[in-house]
Amino acid sequence: MPRVVDHDERRRLIAQVVEQLVYEQGIQAVTIREVASRVGYSTTVVSHYFRTKLDMLVFTHRIARARAEALVDEAVRRSQPLVETLERLLPISDERWRDWHTWFAFWGMAPAEPLVSAEWEEGTSNAHSLFLRLIENAKQSGDFPANIDSAVAATHVQVFVNGIASLVAQNRDAWPAERQQDLLQTLMRTTFPLAARS
Amino acid sequence: MPRVVDHDERRRLIAQVVEQLVYEQGIQAVTIREVASRVGYSTTVVSHYFRTKLDMLVFTHRIARARAEALVDEAVRRSQPLVETLERLLPISDERWRDWHTWFAFWGMAPAEPLVSAEWEEGTSNAHSLFLRLIENAKQSGDFPANIDSAVAATHVQVFVNGIASLVAQNRDAWPAERQQDLLQTLMRTTFPLAARS
Repeated sequence: MPRVVDHDERRRLIAQVVEQLVYEQGIQAVTIREVASRVGYSTTVVSHYFRTKLDMLVFTHRIARARAEALVDEAVRRSQPLVETLERLLPISDERWRDWHTWFAFWGMAPAEPLVSAEWEEGTSNAHSLFLRLIENAKQSGDFPANIDSAVAATHVQVFVNGIASLVAQNRDAWPAERQQDLLQTLMRTTFPLAARS
Repeated sequence: MPRVVDHDERRRLIAQVVEQLVYEQGIQAVTIREVASRVGYSTTVVSHYFRTKLDMLVFTHRIARARAEALVDEAVRRSQPLVETLERLLPISDERWRDWHTWFAFWGMAPAEPLVSAEWEEGTSNAHSLFLRLIENAKQSGDFPANIDSAVAATHVQVFVNGIASLVAQNRDAWPAERQQDLLQTLMRTTFPLAARS
């Protein structure tokens, strides 16, 4: 058994295995038994950390979101330019691509399941807050037109990032990092033009 | 057993049941047995139409795509304005929302499965061709700026439509039809401005 020290870390380790499994075989392959076997715990131990398969999937989705949030936190701390930060959220690396795959898989889960729809709602609302924070930050450093409403802009940015990721999700080979970045830059430049910068 | 006349129709009927099942319980609930029970066939009959669960899911994804294509065909035939047609592709109705749910669920399937990745590629490339057709059509009727490259514009439109749908997918209550349409109109107007229309 890998050396892990606490409850949270074990849950994270399990989430990592779940994400990999969803990536390799799809959501239907996720069972407590299969996850236990991959992580090297007994099913009893895994059941101690997650009561159900659904709990495990919700947590995995949340962990993928947390990684995106950490990226943004770091960007804000380092006062990184807005577009550069957004680019890092796109599926331009293996790790990020895997996170996007987890999100899409989770968005296809059953809306009637309250745990699923609650996590969806929290996810999209958090993403909106993240983008809002980035935009407010960019405004302060003169990196974004001050006369554009931040909340509206955050929604537009959310559409761009999710929309680009949806194209990459379906044809990764056609979308090397540079192509994704170019498209994002074009959309940002067109929607929030320099001319409008005050 | 419902009165269906030919092979294709039966496959469509099964796809409809699969879509409903994915919507109600997620992709993991799709089994030949469960689908057979819902459609009122034996598993042997269902297996005659689809060799595997995967075949069934790929076909269901394709049928959801065909509905979007039919919408576009009709719009082109009736020379419907571009933005109006795009609006009809958004998850503004139950039926359309269900199709989007199917797409997201399918985009979360395992990329290593060749049937899945082939269908993804065909799906995104077909969607691009559809948007390209709509834009070329709009150009001819003076409904779209002639000086904007159609293929580039088609990719932008694809980002907008998928991106908006991704927000709706996660919080349907927050996105009534009108809000989706307003957002699409704003993005279209900003990206392809009247001023650029020749």
